[in-house]
Parts: sequence; C-alpha cells; structure tokens
Amino acid sequence: MAEFQSKIRTIQWTNNCSRMVDQTKFPYEYKYVDITSGDEMFHAIRDMIVRGAPAIGIAGAHGIVLYAIELGKQNISRDEFISKLIEKADYMKTSRPTAVNLMWAVEKQKEIIKNSTSSIDGIIKELTDNGIKLENEDIEINKKIGGFGAEVVPKGATILTHCNAGALATVGYGTALGVVRSAFAKDNTIRVFADETRPRQQGARITTLELTMDGIPTTLITDGMCSYFMKKGMIDMVVVGADRIAANGDAANKIGTYTVAIAAKYHNIPFYIAAPLSTIDTSIATGDEIVIEERSREEVTHINGKIICAPEVNIINPGFDVTPNELIAGIITEVGILRPNYRESIAKAFLK
Amino acid sequence: MAEFQSKIRTIQWTNNCSRMVDQTKFPYEYKYVDITSGDEMFHAIRDMIVRGAPAIGIAGAHGIVLYAIELGKQNISRDEFISKLIEKADYMKTSRPTAVNLMWAVEKQKEIIKNSTSSIDGIIKELTDNGIKLENEDIEINKKIGGFGAEVVPKGATILTHCNAGALATVGYGTALGVVRSAFAKDNTIRVFADETRPRQQGARITTLELTMDGIPTTLITDGMCSYFMKKGMIDMVVVGADRIAANGDAANKIGTYTVAIAAKYHNIPFYIAAPLSTIDTSIATGDEIVIEERSREEVTHINGKIICAPEVNIINPGFDVTPNELIAGIITEVGILRPNYRESIAKAFLK
Repeated sequence: MAEFQSKIRTIQWTNNCSRMVDQTKFPYEYKYVDITSGDEMFHAIRDMIVRGAPAIGIAGAHGIVLYAIELGKQNISRDEFISKLIEKADYMKTSRPTAVNLMWAVEKQKEIIKNSTSSIDGIIKELTDNGIKLENEDIEINKKIGGFGAEVVPKGATILTHCNAGALATVGYGTALGVVRSAFAKDNTIRVFADETRPRQQGARITTLELTMDGIPTTLITDGMCSYFMKKGMIDMVVVGADRIAANGDAANKIGTYTVAIAAKYHNIPFYIAAPLSTIDTSIATGDEIVIEERSREEVTHINGKIICAPEVNIINPGFDVTPNELIAGIITEVGILRPNYRESIAKAFLK
Repeated sequence: MAEFQSKIRTIQWTNNCSRMVDQTKFPYEYKYVDITSGDEMFHAIRDMIVRGAPAIGIAGAHGIVLYAIELGKQNISRDEFISKLIEKADYMKTSRPTAVNLMWAVEKQKEIIKNSTSSIDGIIKELTDNGIKLENEDIEINKKIGGFGAEVVPKGATILTHCNAGALATVGYGTALGVVRSAFAKDNTIRVFADETRPRQQGARITTLELTMDGIPTTLITDGMCSYFMKKGMIDMVVVGADRIAANGDAANKIGTYTVAIAAKYHNIPFYIAAPLSTIDTSIATGDEIVIEERSREEVTHINGKIICAPEVNIINPGFDVTPNELIAGIITEVGILRPNYRESIAKAFLK
C-alpha cells in the first residue's frame, strides 16, 4: 500500500505537553502551540485552535493527561486524585458539546481512571500511553481509508472535494484528503479541485493550505463553479468527508455537499464519502433523523469582519446538509469501500 | 397588469446631465452621482460606477449627448461637429468592449448623428430625446417581462434568484427581479431567496440591497445552500437573468447559474430565464458556441482586499456558465414566455 509522507501533524503528545497547529490564524499563519494545562486545552478546543471531530477527540484525551499531571503534583490521596480527575474529565466534555469524538475519547480515558489498579504515577503513565495510542490509531485508520480509496482513483484523475476532511481535521493524514494523499503517493499526476465552502470557507482557508504544503497541485473554485468544470470533463470523481452517516448510508456533511452530489449525479461522476466506521450511527435509520445545527447569521453576512450585504436581510444558516444514499457511489472506510445497498453493507461492516 | 413602484432609478437624464446610482460602494453606500461630461461617462462605465448590460447601454447613449453638448459650445462648423462627435461615439464604445448593449445604444445615437438634417442644436435635442426614449423603453420592456413572469409565479411563492438581474442592472425595474416586482405587486406574500453569487457577490451586495430597499422580504443564502432549501420545499421556482441566449435556448449567465438549474431539475422545481429578446443571439445555434470570459484570480483569492486561501493555489475563474435548454422551463421575454421546443419558439418570437 502506497503511503504518503505528510508535512502536517495537527496534534502530537510531545515533552509532556500537547503540541498542536493553531488553526485560528489560517491562512495567514501556520504555527504550533504547546498546550501545557488542562484548562488551556479546554480553551483550545472551545476557541477552535484545534478543530475537526477526530482531532478534537485526541485533544480531549490529551487534556485529561494534562489534568492528571497537575493533580499528581498536589498533595492528595489516590482516591481524591481519581474523583477530582473524573470531575475534570466531565468538564472537558463541555468544551464542544456536540463533538461526538470528544465524548468518545474522554470516556476512553475515564475507563482507565476508573479501572486502573496502579498508583497515581502509574495512572498518569497509562493515560499518557492511551493518548498516544489513540493518536496513532487515528492515523492508521486514515491510512487504511486512504489505501482503499486510492484503489478507485483513476490514473491522472482530478478529484473534487468540499470543506476540509484533511490532515488538519484529524491527527495528521485525513479521510477524504487521506484518499487524495494515498492516491498521490501512487500517481503524482492526480490533481485536486477544492470548493471554497462558504460560509466558513474551510476549503479555501484550510484545504488549499494543507494540500499546497504537501505539494499536491490544488485549484480553488467557488462553490457554484463545480458543474461548469464537471461539464467540461475536468472532474473525474468527488470525495468528501462526513459528520454523521445513517444506517441506510444517507450522509450529513458540511452545507453545500448535497449540491455537489446532485451535480456529480447529473454528469455521471462518482461521488464518494470517506469516513471511519465511528462516523456511522446505526441507531439512525435514515438521514431524515439527523438534526441540522443552525449557525449564526454573521457567518453569512460578514467576511473577515466586514459586512457583504444589506444589513437587514434575512438569514438562514444551516451548518450541514444530508446527501441521500442514491447519490453516493461508495463509503470509503477503514474496512473497505461500502457499496449500495448500504443498509446491508453497513450492517455487514459492523459484524466484522 | 399589476405594476410595482420601485424606489430605484439606476440612471436618468436629469437637468442636462446623467444622474446614476454609484454602484462601486455597495453595500456600504447608496448615493447618486451626476455625470456632466462625455469623458466622465467613459470613466463611469469603465470603472463600473454603472453596471449591468442594459444600464450600460443607456449610460453610453447619455454619454454621446454629453459629448454633443460639449462640442456644441465650441466654435466649430456643423460638419466638424458631426465628424468629431462620431469619433467620440466610437471612443465611448471602448469603455467596456464586451458589453453588447453599449454598442447597440451608441449605434442608435450614431444613426441620428449621421441622418439628422437639423442644426447642431437640433441634433443635440434629437440625441437627448432618443436617450430618454431608450431609457423609457428599457423600463417598458422590463415591465412587460415582469407582467408575463408574474403570471407563472404561484401564490405565496418563494423565488430563488442568482446574481443580480435587477433594477440596478437596468434603468429601474429589472428582468428576473422585474418578475419578482410584478409578482409582489399582485401578491405581497411572495418571498425571495438570493444566492450570494461568489466570486463577485452580486447577489449579496446588490440583490439584497435593491430588494430590501423596495420592501420585498429577502433571504440571503450561500451558493451551496440552494439544494438544502429545495429539498425542504422552501423554494417554489427559480428566476435568473441571462447574458446571451443561443437560438436553441441554451443560456449563458453568471457562473453558478448552471449548478442552480441542475439542483432545480433534481427537485422538480421550474427554472426560468427572464431576458429581453435583445439578449437572444440567433446567430448562435447552441450554447457551445458561447465563449466564456476568464476573469482575474484575485476575484476568487481575495474578498474585500484580504486573501482567503493559500497564496500559491491554482485558480480558474470563468465569469459565466451555460445552462442547457433541457433545464429551462421557460424564457420570459417582453413578447411572452417562450417554451420548449426553443428553436421553434425563439424563431417564432423573432417573426413577430
């Protein structure tokens, strides 16, 4: 399996602290910050210094280690240590209340805290080791997704993507952009078209940044342009991430994804979702059950702090949309590419 | 026929000068400027103080009147007056070389200059009268388009539009937004959704401004959102303008229009073009023959002077796209709504 060496490591446990790329300054600055306390981590997550569901999960796990180190320096009993640390862990979960991966990763650390038979120092070591293990697993899962995805990328293909499902949303490889990286490692003639992704412009701000840093030729287009390039035969496939996938394959992703999927269908271009199995919520039968978060009007009315429209205009700003399974050629996961009928292929993937 | 009284008059011959709305400051300022000389008009057109093909045409016609007034004050013979004025008219056409309406309107004035048997003062009067006549005709044509269009707007409909085919692109009523105005005059429960229209954001900057000024409830959405609202049943029809229509009905319009048309088709929502017959170029068999202008990379990479992406990213920036006739429910013109088969209905419209 071809492997791409990315320059990007979004988050990494280093010298007893959590080193992460500060994503609040994109695309103007690319710099690292060292998070050295639990409360600092809480704010880093809340203020979106780190973003992207998988990356937030790891940040949360690191945050528990940082709290443990702090409590370990206090002159308290092992019981007190454990009860205070559990309290801190539950507090950490409130930093981004809707991020499922954050809850999942913090719970993984809580299991260690509750079940360990070690001393305080031993617990700290176990939590640290587990944080690093979760980091490495995230990259391994991404690389597996990338490997399976690369198999369906045609030679010399141009891949369109929307939003950022990249190294900068994960620990360091990406889901949709993991497919791009693995494909590029096998064939350096592949190219990427990145949708700007209004309103928050993650495609412009983040995807163009991480792909050009990794030397992958990338063209930025505005969201309305996709059909123009599809008609011209300049797009061979679409690969995007997902925020939540229902048991029937309906996939919620960043607003605008559904429009791209319809355009791809009209032009007979395959549209793929790339996501780990943890994104699939089998408790949800169809996408109709996915509640769509409504976001602030300023995301639409302002860019870089400046208003772009009549101030009194109405705004509705859904953060996500749902692409129905009939528009999805395949869901690229760490156990292979799931194909229609998704109800069956998803159920089978979870039996493995 | 219901008529809407718009607050907007983009351009009007007033007190021996051309009064126009300065469109360079939208949405921050809405103010009038008086253009008092031919050279001032040349710069107003070139620097996009006035924009929109029909409005530019009228501006050009006014510019010839201004040049005529200036030359009339010089102590020159009638023959010299005529030859110098023709020279100025040809110069005026170079202010926006691709605007077909500018050529058309200047040529109308040149016919008067060449064929008049009047004195210098008489020619100036004839040019002035013709400038005012062209102004009024533009509004009349828009109102006819609005009237025919309003007939197909369902009660309480929400109309999605893209870019700005409004009062501010014409003398004062609009083509696509003329349909909106006429429909609203009959039924004030209709609503508008306006696409932002990246890269130049005419929907955000201009459409939301002119519709809220006229009291028509308007919701601004980003370009990728259209399908989300269509699926929710919140859009009843789409009406957009056109820059050039081929003899088979294929229609070039602002980039992003084609994507909206595909989304409308997928949701069985009627997609209409509203444009005067002068927009139809019967010398072009299909949209494939329409050459698409490529615009500057800065329109995509920068907003309000600030970069939004990795500086070294590739850009392709087509200014327009072509919507194939199969996606168009009707072309709303001043002689009625043309329906498929467009080759036949367009040919018939030109025989009238």
